[in-house]
Amino acid sequence: MKKLFLVACTVLVAVLLQAEDGYRLWLRYDKIDDAALLQQYRNTISGIQLEPSSPTLSVARQELLNALQSLLDKQITSQQTITGNCIVAGTPSSSSIVKQFLSAGNFNLGKEGFVIRSTNIEGKKVTVIAAGSDIGVLYGVFTFLRLLQTHQHINDLSITSVPAIQNRILDHWDNLNRTIERGYAGISIWNWHTLPGYIDKRYIDYARANASIGINGSVLTNVNANALVLTKEYLLKVKALADVFRPYGIKVYLTAKFSAPIEIGGLKTADPLDTAVQNWWNEKCNEIYALIPDFGGFLIKANSEGQPGPQGYGRTHADGANMFADALAPHGGIVMWRAFVYDVRVQKTNEHFEEGKTHEHSATIASDDRFKQAYNEFKPLDGKFRKNVLIQVKNGPIDFQPREPFSPLFGAMPQTQLMMEFQLTQEYLGQATNLVFEAPLFKEVLVADTYTKGKGSTVAKVIDGSLNNNTVTGIAGVANIGNDIDWTGHPFAQSNWYAFGRLAWDHDLSAAQIADEWLRQTFSNNSAFLDPAKTIMLTSRETLVDYMTPLGLHHIMGTSHHYGPAPWVDNAGRADWNPVYYHKADSAGIGFDRTATGSNALSQYNPEVQKQWNNVNTCNEKYVLWFHHVPWDFKIQPGRTLWDELCYKYNTGVDSVRWMQAAWNGLATYIDQERFEDVRMLLGIQETEAVWWRNACLLYFQTFSKMPFPANYEKPDHDLEYYKALKFPLAPGIGGNM
Amino acid sequence: MKKLFLVACTVLVAVLLQAEDGYRLWLRYDKIDDAALLQQYRNTISGIQLEPSSPTLSVARQELLNALQSLLDKQITSQQTITGNCIVAGTPSSSSIVKQFLSAGNFNLGKEGFVIRSTNIEGKKVTVIAAGSDIGVLYGVFTFLRLLQTHQHINDLSITSVPAIQNRILDHWDNLNRTIERGYAGISIWNWHTLPGYIDKRYIDYARANASIGINGSVLTNVNANALVLTKEYLLKVKALADVFRPYGIKVYLTAKFSAPIEIGGLKTADPLDTAVQNWWNEKCNEIYALIPDFGGFLIKANSEGQPGPQGYGRTHADGANMFADALAPHGGIVMWRAFVYDVRVQKTNEHFEEGKTHEHSATIASDDRFKQAYNEFKPLDGKFRKNVLIQVKNGPIDFQPREPFSPLFGAMPQTQLMMEFQLTQEYLGQATNLVFEAPLFKEVLVADTYTKGKGSTVAKVIDGSLNNNTVTGIAGVANIGNDIDWTGHPFAQSNWYAFGRLAWDHDLSAAQIADEWLRQTFSNNSAFLDPAKTIMLTSRETLVDYMTPLGLHHIMGTSHHYGPAPWVDNAGRADWNPVYYHKADSAGIGFDRTATGSNALSQYNPEVQKQWNNVNTCNEKYVLWFHHVPWDFKIQPGRTLWDELCYKYNTGVDSVRWMQAAWNGLATYIDQERFEDVRMLLGIQETEAVWWRNACLLYFQTFSKMPFPANYEKPDHDLEYYKALKFPLAPGIGGNM
Repeated sequence: MKKLFLVACTVLVAVLLQAEDGYRLWLRYDKIDDAALLQQYRNTISGIQLEPSSPTLSVARQELLNALQSLLDKQITSQQTITGNCIVAGTPSSSSIVKQFLSAGNFNLGKEGFVIRSTNIEGKKVTVIAAGSDIGVLYGVFTFLRLLQTHQHINDLSITSVPAIQNRILDHWDNLNRTIERGYAGISIWNWHTLPGYIDKRYIDYARANASIGINGSVLTNVNANALVLTKEYLLKVKALADVFRPYGIKVYLTAKFSAPIEIGGLKTADPLDTAVQNWWNEKCNEIYALIPDFGGFLIKANSEGQPGPQGYGRTHADGANMFADALAPHGGIVMWRAFVYDVRVQKTNEHFEEGKTHEHSATIASDDRFKQAYNEFKPLDGKFRKNVLIQVKNGPIDFQPREPFSPLFGAMPQTQLMMEFQLTQEYLGQATNLVFEAPLFKEVLVADTYTKGKGSTVAKVIDGSLNNNTVTGIAGVANIGNDIDWTGHPFAQSNWYAFGRLAWDHDLSAAQIADEWLRQTFSNNSAFLDPAKTIMLTSRETLVDYMTPLGLHHIMGTSHHYGPAPWVDNAGRADWNPVYYHKADSAGIGFDRTATGSNALSQYNPEVQKQWNNVNTCNEKYVLWFHHVPWDFKIQPGRTLWDELCYKYNTGVDSVRWMQAAWNGLATYIDQERFEDVRMLLGIQETEAVWWRNACLLYFQTFSKMPFPANYEKPDHDLEYYKALKFPLAPGIGGNM
Repeated sequence: MKKLFLVACTVLVAVLLQAEDGYRLWLRYDKIDDAALLQQYRNTISGIQLEPSSPTLSVARQELLNALQSLLDKQITSQQTITGNCIVAGTPSSSSIVKQFLSAGNFNLGKEGFVIRSTNIEGKKVTVIAAGSDIGVLYGVFTFLRLLQTHQHINDLSITSVPAIQNRILDHWDNLNRTIERGYAGISIWNWHTLPGYIDKRYIDYARANASIGINGSVLTNVNANALVLTKEYLLKVKALADVFRPYGIKVYLTAKFSAPIEIGGLKTADPLDTAVQNWWNEKCNEIYALIPDFGGFLIKANSEGQPGPQGYGRTHADGANMFADALAPHGGIVMWRAFVYDVRVQKTNEHFEEGKTHEHSATIASDDRFKQAYNEFKPLDGKFRKNVLIQVKNGPIDFQPREPFSPLFGAMPQTQLMMEFQLTQEYLGQATNLVFEAPLFKEVLVADTYTKGKGSTVAKVIDGSLNNNTVTGIAGVANIGNDIDWTGHPFAQSNWYAFGRLAWDHDLSAAQIADEWLRQTFSNNSAFLDPAKTIMLTSRETLVDYMTPLGLHHIMGTSHHYGPAPWVDNAGRADWNPVYYHKADSAGIGFDRTATGSNALSQYNPEVQKQWNNVNTCNEKYVLWFHHVPWDFKIQPGRTLWDELCYKYNTGVDSVRWMQAAWNGLATYIDQERFEDVRMLLGIQETEAVWWRNACLLYFQTFSKMPFPANYEKPDHDLEYYKALKFPLAPGIGGNM
């Protein structure tokens, strides 16, 4: 007895010494700390029957065993036959019981769906996790484990789950030298130098984490591409990663540099209509698929911000995309062609672009409003793309701002397969240090109505293919993952990776449900913790909008690095890189007139959508400066001028961060000290940055409004010149800065 | 009983789920797994008495408590009074018992030394850890814990330990954007962007690890310096790190860019004899010390590889160093002035230097042998430096090669305080992927005899001040630390950090003892593991020399990145950047004649040293090509020509790596799977690289020797052209490559 007690002490010490470093993400599998529930789970789960007849089923079985033994603190047997309270998992091929179970039901599980059901088989109460495919079983296993980790009842389960979107993909803007464009969590987890000989355990845990939330694709390389990744030496490294990811249902994709046939192929041209170029890509695809039979395909940024593309040869985006599509089609690969383009014709050649590349001179449509340009270039091409081409559209018309209206392209290309590009990494959302839960942003876009086929034509329905009957569908999130021990730098940034995966699988999930799930798995099921923490998460994005870009302001961040406020910048290389271009503040007012009296960008939307925004008196104030140049004394709220409202919003943002701090400080006793302290310190930085944003922006805009700060607000502690003088040459996320 | 058993199971599962990710370094404190010894330790240690009356004593107490509870798996009480089997630790100020104990003995502990003694106090058997200073107590605590971790007997302890060298410093070649020059373990652990608001737990664990081996200084920034770190914004970040490190006895140092008065001070000159410049540095030091009262001082690379320096103003290194020394002296700071200089006068201006900087034109002494240049520049300045200046000399005359003779400067400047610069990061020692234990290299240099004051005038005695009666002494190691989870990338690279600290404290320790200690703490005390693992470590450096640069070859690595073999390179920007400059292979033979018939670099050594090396017939073959151009058919061994010997050495190197692989594979059962697999995979890469080195070098040198490969050796699997065509533009450690 004494000996056992000593052993018990060991638990405590061992656990204390193991820091909560965040590496485990939401797959912590700590012992269920609710005694009654634990007993109930133990009663319901005695063993598992899962024939590991494939690599995927093998990892599913191992995950289930490891997790259950840890969660239930109990030996779990892996058995050949059914006993009471066992879990039976498999496919019709791997298990005759599953075969019988599925044929008895009326399931439509597709390639990736699964069923979890509490039922009786041979007179024994069992839980069945069944799928038509191996990967469906793995998804079912992770879903079942989520139920336990979030303390759900599991005695009467009847779950059927099928993903809404086929290709659920992380885009890594990772360079081959391991820097990450817009990365705020260290460097790339892909260590190209030691691949393929060295397989970092991280590669496996990355695949596990993705599979646990249904992500099934990974674009390994930056959209600002390096052709070297297509050389044999690198393809062998890519193959090594593909081999690691395959059991977890994750396909690898690469970014294809349009000029690769010249750079590494020795050709004189990259013209997509040139037979030699087409042959080169065909051969390259043959080479890739010989190594990686399930290679996913290419993501391509062309004729944008200095990247070469078909327009350099007088061809269209469709010509370019279709060339890749034809090369990939025989192997089943897809092309994701980005719609993030904006006019470069007004610029002289060889200028340095925002993302640090030198652009080639190319022929595009001139325009006075960057908002309109993706639509202008792509709308005319509707219906001209091959069936295995997806046009990848950023959620908004500009560039991942704290709030944007949805991109008008989502309502404009019914004959084209569009996919969504969200940005998980917080380029414009406080970067390394701000707590921002992005699910509310994602949801806001997904539920937005394009009215293309009448009310209810949501962006989600465009993306999931249901509105236009698409046969291939996709959604991408620009990853926020780096080699920081906790993967994402800010502990709460993990929630954005998680939310993306969950919404990609099921866009009907609410932000609140996702926050709840994530918090329970990542921190605690204690409601005294959950309720305040959930409120912090669910209000965090609106809080950021308030102290950064309220009322529809956008793109007023520091040049290039996008760190901190710089609404005064008016000397960037081209007009539409300047904050002044976007806010247009003057003595008359502030905001970008995109109605018919202005750039008329609004006309790119369905009339029903236009109606929401085209009248300054009825336009929701969240979007008003996106579409209107509003006089400073305009009464935007009863009794409040635009200027007053701007002051109110900026101050509300700061107050909200201070509320977050206080709320978080009340949670110290519920979670580990390490992560509590991490978040506490980061909220301190966030408060400083929120104050900086408020002070800098209000002081600057005041030079136009000439109106006083309303009484009772905190006064700026520096003058405008102080803020304008701040320089951050080493801010992370660009060039070699980390 | 059943309940307790379940708890016991938790231990197992919890431990299994916690990966051995290497983060804990040699401070793992796992429970003693030898039952008899555990019982003995438990009997000897019941509680501790350590009054935490200062931050340092507080961390000492916490470390002791945490570690003992974990190692002994037993509750340890922290008590006010003495009881039997307690540990009494403190200083005369913190503890009356310690005061009495120390005054009864005849100890000379200096500022950092300590005593550990088993004794009787008030009739009770206790273990005393006593020191004259708080930091001495912390060092004593870590030493005591090492005894336990390495399974030493602790019943009859009588240890007195005082460091041989005062300033034991890690030099981080970390840039402010977090890239690391010659870093192979991720990016800098200093996250300048989130400092000072966010204190990464790593900063604390870095300090703990260093204190545990006696390292007491950290140069935070790259010798190729960025003046920005001296601005107020960055000094506040430096202060935050200094505050974290202070309880652990670690001072922070910065690299001072010579041109900082111009770059950030607005002056027109950086001339060290200019009063305005001197005042600027004086004021800068005042500013720094107001923030960081125990700031250590500056490390300066000047007039070397593009770094500006006093010679740009017609001044000497002494003029430059003394200016800094005068600014630091009032505050107690030191200057570490690097002797790593080589002639640039033969070059034209604005050329790109090896380390990626543009050099300024400066007046130095022309020379035909880079070997001689540090001596040529510094020897004439002997005695001209202030008392708080240390001249920091790399261990060898060239640049951290796998083997170099010791730098002749160590025997040449008796009136100057020299400090050693070792390189822990494996720039020329296999970088990210090769297992090389460096203690044998360090020892080889430290025990080398300069004969300056007769036999026994070892380099160690120069460094520790005993030969020339120096009042300030120092030793630096260029850190191999990055943000990889395990700190150093290769699990065995941790041993080089460890070995440096241990030798800096006590250079009499043998490499074998250090390997033994490190292995026991890091992996296992099981002799079935220890013996083979120790052999792997102790032979690893000679193995690397064999497959990379045998017989005194040096600097034949790839240009700039120094990755892989490139003995054929002859077109680098200046003569002494080319491998052909160093090996001088031709039809007559191979090697650099540095005797009187050649560059006569040998004359820089004491005649006794010259005698060892100046005769090709008696020169140890390890050094022969350092000093002689040796005919291919020269009989270097009975019955073996130089060519045969070269072939033999390269093949021996490959064979030795294969032996390491086999030996390691036999150790799988003794350690955790994760680190076992890590090392196994890395040894696989090392084998590939060893074969590559052998094949490329032998094929190339054969074009001169025109002699056949001896029979029975493995034949190269590619031709020379294949190896010459290999390019590694993204090899890590330079520019933005990681």
